[in-house]
Amino acid sequence: MVSTERSFIEVDPQSHFPIHNLPYGVFRPLSGGDPRIGVAIGSYVLDLAALDKAGHFHATAVAGKDIFSQPSLNAFMALGRTAWRKVRAQVQQLLRADEPALRDDAVLRAAALHPIHDVELLLPAQIGDYTDFYASKYHASNVGTMFRGKENALMPNWTHLPVGYHGRASSVVVSGTDVRRPLGQMKPADAQAPLFGPSRQLDFELELGWLIGPGNELGQSVPIEQAEEQIFGLVLVNDWSARDIQAWEYQPLGPFLAKNFATSISPWVVPLEALEPFRVAGPEQEPAPLPYLQQAGAGAFDIQLQVGLTGEGIETSQTISASNFKYLYWSMAQQIAHHTVGGCNLRPGDLLASGTISGPTKDSLGCMLELTWRGTEPLQLHNGEQRIWLEDGDEVSITGWCQGEGYRVGFGEVTGRVLPAHDNPA
Amino acid sequence: MVSTERSFIEVDPQSHFPIHNLPYGVFRPLSGGDPRIGVAIGSYVLDLAALDKAGHFHATAVAGKDIFSQPSLNAFMALGRTAWRKVRAQVQQLLRADEPALRDDAVLRAAALHPIHDVELLLPAQIGDYTDFYASKYHASNVGTMFRGKENALMPNWTHLPVGYHGRASSVVVSGTDVRRPLGQMKPADAQAPLFGPSRQLDFELELGWLIGPGNELGQSVPIEQAEEQIFGLVLVNDWSARDIQAWEYQPLGPFLAKNFATSISPWVVPLEALEPFRVAGPEQEPAPLPYLQQAGAGAFDIQLQVGLTGEGIETSQTISASNFKYLYWSMAQQIAHHTVGGCNLRPGDLLASGTISGPTKDSLGCMLELTWRGTEPLQLHNGEQRIWLEDGDEVSITGWCQGEGYRVGFGEVTGRVLPAHDNPA
Repeated sequence: MVSTERSFIEVDPQSHFPIHNLPYGVFRPLSGGDPRIGVAIGSYVLDLAALDKAGHFHATAVAGKDIFSQPSLNAFMALGRTAWRKVRAQVQQLLRADEPALRDDAVLRAAALHPIHDVELLLPAQIGDYTDFYASKYHASNVGTMFRGKENALMPNWTHLPVGYHGRASSVVVSGTDVRRPLGQMKPADAQAPLFGPSRQLDFELELGWLIGPGNELGQSVPIEQAEEQIFGLVLVNDWSARDIQAWEYQPLGPFLAKNFATSISPWVVPLEALEPFRVAGPEQEPAPLPYLQQAGAGAFDIQLQVGLTGEGIETSQTISASNFKYLYWSMAQQIAHHTVGGCNLRPGDLLASGTISGPTKDSLGCMLELTWRGTEPLQLHNGEQRIWLEDGDEVSITGWCQGEGYRVGFGEVTGRVLPAHDNPA
Repeated sequence: MVSTERSFIEVDPQSHFPIHNLPYGVFRPLSGGDPRIGVAIGSYVLDLAALDKAGHFHATAVAGKDIFSQPSLNAFMALGRTAWRKVRAQVQQLLRADEPALRDDAVLRAAALHPIHDVELLLPAQIGDYTDFYASKYHASNVGTMFRGKENALMPNWTHLPVGYHGRASSVVVSGTDVRRPLGQMKPADAQAPLFGPSRQLDFELELGWLIGPGNELGQSVPIEQAEEQIFGLVLVNDWSARDIQAWEYQPLGPFLAKNFATSISPWVVPLEALEPFRVAGPEQEPAPLPYLQQAGAGAFDIQLQVGLTGEGIETSQTISASNFKYLYWSMAQQIAHHTVGGCNLRPGDLLASGTISGPTKDSLGCMLELTWRGTEPLQLHNGEQRIWLEDGDEVSITGWCQGEGYRVGFGEVTGRVLPAHDNPA
């Protein structure tokens, strides 16, 4: 599809949701009704369950399966890329300015098109497992330097494999969900023994994630040349982190309570197909990875990312970081190939995330830990205040988009506001 | 219930499944039919769905919910301790030698009692998240010594909190499932660069796990005095591990591919209530834990554990380890209180496991890594062979039981056989 095509629905050039995008989400009309699956178009949500009932998917793999009347995308994800492409092509066709089927059907339009402010957006998938990688070399080097010193910043394994770990699936929440500051153990450098209390070093992490399609059988790997077929679509991710809890707990088995109190994702899942025009080469990899990690062709995507901060006394959102998905050292395909090479099975709806996406410059760092260099270089806010870590009442908003000629393919945003910790039970 | 009570079903004193136990499982008759929930009694499986249909649970919380006709225990787990106790009391009553309701109902007996060898046992729960702890001080000290030297064996945090990490839920399999030797990256000490191939250091880990009942809301913690109410029941766990992959990948984010190719659990879930007669005090904890981890009363259980090995040329299972659940430093309640103290939500069916349960003596170590001291002290087998790590065709069988007076409350076993790695794709 070329960028000159357009929809009968008016879409602002700055909108994240032109006909080129068509991200999937799960929504419920504020006026009532069950959760169902929709697609964002301009400032509307198109109800795919309504289109399905009207017979508009009769020539696709979803026909007769009530797949869009479900409260998660999992069943649709399980169908695989051929089915996704047919459905996407059909939705694009129905939305074209020169296609009368939906445009001229006032009854169907009234049933299927909801102003986006008249719906509640829900978690798009039932996430079986959540894996978080550590794929930005800038981020890994910066954090390693701060936690272990410059000499031990990058572990010897880092340039040979995409380091990752299992996250917590139960606490993945949709954008807009408030995040409670966690209580936990921490041990300040000057303390004799660990303390218990609210985290004092609450942080965000700017990430992108991708939701898995059909998956693989236990004991079988996904070869790298087939890895992208497993990617249903991408979401923005904020992997909230408590750095003081993390520093004390993370050795030797990795982050645990420092991360599992909340991970926020955006409600709209941008299909990989919509990102194809923005595919670019990733960074050169030296040393060359082992054969199972060697990807032919470009594996990165030019997705601009921004982090905004508002809060008490910060009325206008202040951009505190501007990064890009293309800065990642390891590609999504490499991360999937690595994840499954030992036989680990991925299932429809699994979430894999990139880890913090930091760039090479000071203003492209993807978390407070790096932006303030562990608190030693406070962020200057426009209102004259400083920030070292997130404070109660702060709201972090991450957004991302690909810039086309006269249009954007965007992700909307993932937001979350920090609530004060519960009273200390200890 | 006192040990002199007995069932109208004959139960051998060595059986793991007397009327004192009544573990829950999910089964399917080999003759056909849908998965459903049963209880093991002697050499039979009692079909709770059949008892429910016959009206025998009308006075309990499961009445009218078809909870036992489901393919997982999750819905039953969600009901909570009061419901579990009533159902358990009713099943015990129906099985008593002096209770005619089932004993004398030949039609119901024929419908509800299946010889255990005539059923297939399935994964008992749909596991949303799997967390593995590291709660044996013996194990953590031994592994730490081998990986980091004696000086850095126990990290400073270890005696202050139950170290744990998120495992992989998708690859938790039921006993009897073959386990494929994983391919992966490893870096032998004498290699310049990492190698790719089948793991050469495949290991088992002797663990117990517990399945979560109602769970907690995101942002709320489970206070330690309420933590045991969250435990529906316990299972045996074999957390298969590839030590060479682990040693290369685990820093700084913890084990990933070294563990996520398979974790095996036993099909029978022993209710916490059945273990009450075997409750004992755990080890003294020094330094005293922070208040949120201080448990009143005894928090350990005297559960004897054994690991058996068979394989090509090892016809009779050889016991290679004999340990006990009571050796753990951190209790289940402490692990639950810690897991949730920052607000992480547990959901019905979540699996928490102890980590390798090693004891103080050489013959009570819970994995090959420790038993052979990372390969330097091979295990002598009765057939004259030696074992350093698991070989293809080896079958590991873990069993566990509590010894009462004239009866045992046991777990059955969790077994798994090692299949050779797939051909190396690299």
